[in-house]
Amino acid sequence: MNERGLIEIIKSITKSRFIGDDCAYLKELGITVTQDSFVEGVHFSLDWMTPYQLGAKAIKVNISDILASGAEPVYCLVALSLPGNLGEGFVEEFYRGMQAGAASTVIEGIKPVEIAGGDLTGGDKVFISISMIGKVGKRNISSRRNAKPGYKIVLCGQHGSSAGGLRLLEQGRQDVNELVQAHFNPTLYPKFALTISDNIQTPYAMMDTSDGLGDALFKIAAASGVTICIDFEKIPYNKKIEIFSDWKNLVLFGGEDYGLVAALPEVYCCTTDGIVIGEVLEGGTAPLIVNYSGSIIKYNSVDEFTFNHFLH
Amino acid sequence: MNERGLIEIIKSITKSRFIGDDCAYLKELGITVTQDSFVEGVHFSLDWMTPYQLGAKAIKVNISDILASGAEPVYCLVALSLPGNLGEGFVEEFYRGMQAGAASTVIEGIKPVEIAGGDLTGGDKVFISISMIGKVGKRNISSRRNAKPGYKIVLCGQHGSSAGGLRLLEQGRQDVNELVQAHFNPTLYPKFALTISDNIQTPYAMMDTSDGLGDALFKIAAASGVTICIDFEKIPYNKKIEIFSDWKNLVLFGGEDYGLVAALPEVYCCTTDGIVIGEVLEGGTAPLIVNYSGSIIKYNSVDEFTFNHFLH
Repeated sequence: MNERGLIEIIKSITKSRFIGDDCAYLKELGITVTQDSFVEGVHFSLDWMTPYQLGAKAIKVNISDILASGAEPVYCLVALSLPGNLGEGFVEEFYRGMQAGAASTVIEGIKPVEIAGGDLTGGDKVFISISMIGKVGKRNISSRRNAKPGYKIVLCGQHGSSAGGLRLLEQGRQDVNELVQAHFNPTLYPKFALTISDNIQTPYAMMDTSDGLGDALFKIAAASGVTICIDFEKIPYNKKIEIFSDWKNLVLFGGEDYGLVAALPEVYCCTTDGIVIGEVLEGGTAPLIVNYSGSIIKYNSVDEFTFNHFLH
Repeated sequence: MNERGLIEIIKSITKSRFIGDDCAYLKELGITVTQDSFVEGVHFSLDWMTPYQLGAKAIKVNISDILASGAEPVYCLVALSLPGNLGEGFVEEFYRGMQAGAASTVIEGIKPVEIAGGDLTGGDKVFISISMIGKVGKRNISSRRNAKPGYKIVLCGQHGSSAGGLRLLEQGRQDVNELVQAHFNPTLYPKFALTISDNIQTPYAMMDTSDGLGDALFKIAAASGVTICIDFEKIPYNKKIEIFSDWKNLVLFGGEDYGLVAALPEVYCCTTDGIVIGEVLEGGTAPLIVNYSGSIIKYNSVDEFTFNHFLH
């Protein structure tokens, strides 16, 4: 069982116009919406993360999806299920973390996301599911189907750090604190996202790199029927992950950095503070081509490098 | 630990204007939103319910909250977490159930709720969290704070059946099929809700009876600072629950019937197909007064009769 196969089943039953992008754009209501879950033992361990860190990360992950749609994150609902023994202290710290996470992503002219309600239930394990609403206003909303040959690939955020931090945690190490902190407390890029969506006059693609940069690029290329070609050397990363022999895989395929990657006409690239790492070509046999300092690798699939929840 | 205490903590941290009603009314966006979770072992057992039944009930429970707000349910997002061994068959049947549940609540002039996306993850237990969006348009939105002395209490739906059905299931019995079916497949009342919200010109209170009729009445009375007085005899119920010696408690406090109860000026009561079961009085010492065929019981609290997730 894998997520893609299940999503195909869901599409065939619901015949939904929306399933495909991380956010659904509900034009009639002028909003984009998303919902993401965090399951103890799958997405996090309470041995590693405090309730405060968990709250901050859970809300930021959803803010990131709304930003990637090009909308302004405005409201969220929070479903929290937790064992009775965790009690008031857990709830209090979790909500304080969410407030801090929401406040940390504020830029000029934008208010912090407001928690508008939710649901609190018992359960054997901690389960969190946050739904987030983004206001569209006059902004232009992205879709992963919108990349076109000739567009440039623009990226913001360092990549690989969060996956490196997670590996340290799994090894019982916290010796490279910057990487562990990148895993606990990702940086978001509201200015990058909203500068693009405020200004662009043409269809464009944008995704966050929550499942890895390579996965986001592959999904955009596949959904748009194009090939994306990037220079590995141009991807910003923290040199400390070079302690891992497979660090290049962490940079390209490690998840949970929550950078943003967009495919835009060249004329809009200079309006962002991102870095151009590649370009969009006509669709070929491989959706993703990576130039590693002259060695070219063509990826027909990225499945072996990405995370499958159902194997865990 | 109880839910009310935790909600107070959440209110004090978030300072949210919205927490209090089952739906948040986001005026700026013209929508009401809600999110409810279903946790295996807390809200349902896979020994009793098929994935199809679970899907139908999960979506209906959220539709019910939106209807109680007075809005038209239009879109939902679905977070589903499930163990890897359940596989494609589970997902397919669950989604088919959701589609059927959405279709079953359609009335003239209203389209079925559309599934606009969501999230699929692994996990040890089945966990479902659905967020639902209601469109306000020109409708008047309810709040549990809006009951006023002189208003009438109007009810639709039979009460006690679902709790009776659950008790049979817990006893390993399915001999009174109507009750078990009421638990698996609750009836919703879109016409009752939308007739009120389309026509009413004054503030009013409306809630669904998901946590029991007595709980809903108590919450409305407490939030509005009034006393609600009802005649037990007027509450519609299925006589088959009289097999239980405490059937009166099931009628008043049993959960998951998903009827609707409203506090309205008398002039609007006749526009609904509901039954007037009582009235709103000035606030007194007890928020809820029930007349059991001449025996008056004043309830200062309903906690002992209602469900606490954290004890399970």
